[in-house]
Amino acid sequence: MEQRISLITLGVTDVSRARAFYERLGWRGQEAEETVFFQAGGMALILWGRAKLAADSGVANAGPGAHEGAGAHEGAHEGAHEGAHEGAGGFDGVVLAQNLRSREEVDALLAAAAAAGAEITQPARETFYGGYAGCFRDPDGHVWEVAWNPGFTLAADGSLVLPDFG
Amino acid sequence: MEQRISLITLGVTDVSRARAFYERLGWRGQEAEETVFFQAGGMALILWGRAKLAADSGVANAGPGAHEGAGAHEGAHEGAHEGAHEGAGGFDGVVLAQNLRSREEVDALLAAAAAAGAEITQPARETFYGGYAGCFRDPDGHVWEVAWNPGFTLAADGSLVLPDFG
Repeated sequence: MEQRISLITLGVTDVSRARAFYERLGWRGQEAEETVFFQAGGMALILWGRAKLAADSGVANAGPGAHEGAGAHEGAHEGAHEGAHEGAGGFDGVVLAQNLRSREEVDALLAAAAAAGAEITQPARETFYGGYAGCFRDPDGHVWEVAWNPGFTLAADGSLVLPDFG
Repeated sequence: MEQRISLITLGVTDVSRARAFYERLGWRGQEAEETVFFQAGGMALILWGRAKLAADSGVANAGPGAHEGAGAHEGAHEGAHEGAHEGAGGFDGVVLAQNLRSREEVDALLAAAAAAGAEITQPARETFYGGYAGCFRDPDGHVWEVAWNPGFTLAADGSLVLPDFG
């Protein structure tokens, strides 16, 4: 596993409210499908509905705001892991991601994470955005997504560059 | 506020266990004062005791693992905010940081965050490592530290470079 973080996604209860807050601080991003993307150096900060983020990561949306904002996506929780995790149990509301260059790299990193003792919360699968990704939790319950996303550019040094969503 | 993230700190219940996990995934870092620092591109990933991280950020250590790992540092919780926060309430167990170039920039960004509607959980003050920092929470309760740390290098493009702790 290379030592880099491609994305940080913050789960939010109201995407518009969250985006407005960061814009008041001077951040400028792009929105697509109720998701806000901010380029931040060689990575991106993303704002996304907390319930969707939990469901996408295969974890139960326990914790602050857990029962807010789910709306029509409540069904997406089916299949999420409800059991407590050693040293953890809830959902941070934050997901780190490492983007890789192929499906094979995703499979290899998830296998390495499982061998290292991680819980695979979401086995790798094709994603709604045309990529391939899976998720694991570290021993403290912090969630990582491992993704191949052909829509995002990975520079030679591993930096991630967002596209123009225009 | 520039669009960049300098540090991501993951709160953990056992620093050695957490470090060992990331090392099994191939990460290599440095440890100082029960804190592990991994250079990750133009930023750093840090592992630190969850209770210490919450206390340092001025937030209550509610959430998964909240009552683990506090040990001798329990007293540090005094003064932490115990009240619920609109749209949030607990602690993610994760803190994002933006490092700046002077104490004045720290004061200015915290003032801007407060004006934008953030809760200042930790007013800026001199830190144990010889820097100057404060913290705020965004509308969803995600915690940011705003810091001037003369021990960490900020490149012209804002990238953070860890020192050799040797």
